[in-house]
Amino acid sequence: MPSDSYHPRIAVVGSGAIGSYYGARLAAIGHDVHFLMRSDLKTVCRDGLIVHSVAAPDLHLYPVQACGSTREIGPVDLVIIAVKTTANAALERLIPPLLHEKTALVTLQNGLGNERFLAERFGAERIMGALCFICLNRIAPGEISHLGSGAISVGEYQGPPQARTLDLVAALNEAGVNAQAVENLITERWRKEVWNVPFNGLAIAAGGLTTDLLLASKPLEDLIRGLMAEIVAIAAAYGHPIPADFVNSQLERTRPMGDYHPSSLLDYQAGLPVEIEAIWGEPLREAQKAGVPAGRLEMLYRMIQHLTVKPKLQP
Amino acid sequence: MPSDSYHPRIAVVGSGAIGSYYGARLAAIGHDVHFLMRSDLKTVCRDGLIVHSVAAPDLHLYPVQACGSTREIGPVDLVIIAVKTTANAALERLIPPLLHEKTALVTLQNGLGNERFLAERFGAERIMGALCFICLNRIAPGEISHLGSGAISVGEYQGPPQARTLDLVAALNEAGVNAQAVENLITERWRKEVWNVPFNGLAIAAGGLTTDLLLASKPLEDLIRGLMAEIVAIAAAYGHPIPADFVNSQLERTRPMGDYHPSSLLDYQAGLPVEIEAIWGEPLREAQKAGVPAGRLEMLYRMIQHLTVKPKLQP
Repeated sequence: MPSDSYHPRIAVVGSGAIGSYYGARLAAIGHDVHFLMRSDLKTVCRDGLIVHSVAAPDLHLYPVQACGSTREIGPVDLVIIAVKTTANAALERLIPPLLHEKTALVTLQNGLGNERFLAERFGAERIMGALCFICLNRIAPGEISHLGSGAISVGEYQGPPQARTLDLVAALNEAGVNAQAVENLITERWRKEVWNVPFNGLAIAAGGLTTDLLLASKPLEDLIRGLMAEIVAIAAAYGHPIPADFVNSQLERTRPMGDYHPSSLLDYQAGLPVEIEAIWGEPLREAQKAGVPAGRLEMLYRMIQHLTVKPKLQP
Repeated sequence: MPSDSYHPRIAVVGSGAIGSYYGARLAAIGHDVHFLMRSDLKTVCRDGLIVHSVAAPDLHLYPVQACGSTREIGPVDLVIIAVKTTANAALERLIPPLLHEKTALVTLQNGLGNERFLAERFGAERIMGALCFICLNRIAPGEISHLGSGAISVGEYQGPPQARTLDLVAALNEAGVNAQAVENLITERWRKEVWNVPFNGLAIAAGGLTTDLLLASKPLEDLIRGLMAEIVAIAAAYGHPIPADFVNSQLERTRPMGDYHPSSLLDYQAGLPVEIEAIWGEPLREAQKAGVPAGRLEMLYRMIQHLTVKPKLQP
């Protein structure tokens, strides 16, 4: 059993690499974690969940409380949401069986708008969010490789950290995850967008380029800076100030990353759904609502839409 | 000899398809036209200039007054400039030997800024310009195929048509070219940019798409409209009003064009220089000077820069 006072019943919805990783870490120190699984259900019930890690000994969780439906799981205290944002619509059906009066939801999803999506459907007071800075690969059903980092920043949708925020952060740290509470979750989301919008976007739109190739092109570096400036301006319009030198620091921290494949590029190249709305669509709609010019962002959004939808004619 | 009063000595600088075509038409009715030629000089001196045309009997101009330098041509009354805008720097050296006190220059070049470039170097009062709506192919040295249209709109850089403008228009019409004088040349240049910026640009940036494929993609059609709106806004900031329904009419006139290859796409695919500055760079700089938001245009400009320059690293 983990620390004395915090014994939530937990459900992980979306047991891909991210959900499985954080869920397994919490379960490994004795938390009561239930995993919603589809394709990996049989394998995980039979063999458990395996996490290979650069940072810690391998973790083999067995048995695993894995279910094929949230009805089987029933009400929990905390729902960890880790489905891809392209599958958000399914949450309307998946979440209700997990709720009691005080159930909290924490979304580990990418991009903007996920907290609002959940708040509008299940009540804003339930919603927390977390930004995951981690490199994971699902290498086989029920088997995950943790390749680097792993920090997670947890915050409240509606305000500063509460007792439940700090409890979750403490539980994660106890589980060996480098977690911290953040004062303003949505500001952090915008800060992550400053990197995600240009690097994930141009990696796809400029023809499959890794971060080193994006930065090796002067015109593309100019565009990266211009796109970052647009995101900073949109964020500012919503009361999320990002300091001017943040753009430079984002470029400087990217240079040593070498031939890094942004996650959206990996999705795109694998033919998987790209999280277009969460990464580019939401900030664009926010810009339009606030009347902030965001032509570069719109261009990128439409080009990625074009590249990821089947055209009526083939070239 | 052509009509009684207009006997200018004419030089054609840049005897590619456009220069050779209009020059040959004028020479064929007896005008005194001198062609500056490089690669085709020997062939044209020996065999003449041949124009195959969908619209008229073949034209074989022989002998041709072709020279390898503008020094050999000497002062003329009218210089027809038809070099690619990517070679504009060479005009600083090529034009001076052709000038007397009253020499007029008419640029048939694409895009924006060519009149100003010439005006700053040779005096604004000399400068005329013309927009060519024509489909030409150079099929062999000294041999041109005229595939369609051929209209040309001639105007003054600094104001409404003058006597010399009307003289040139009359001469062109006499030569079998459908020419007209325009009240405001620069407004016409902006109107042509409304089409050129999105169609030439996205044809390249979206991966080599003809106009039908661009219009078959909803996200790209949205971008085409957005880019056109930016050009209309920039033009308006400089006193060149373009009516709101012009955007729609440009799309509607493009739909029947089928799998049309915009000229910049042909250049790009052939590995030839793309007229980046005249088509995208100039309107972008004008937008920045006037403080008009033009993020989509900037994005397109930088992406084409990226695609047409050698990156430091190869993917």
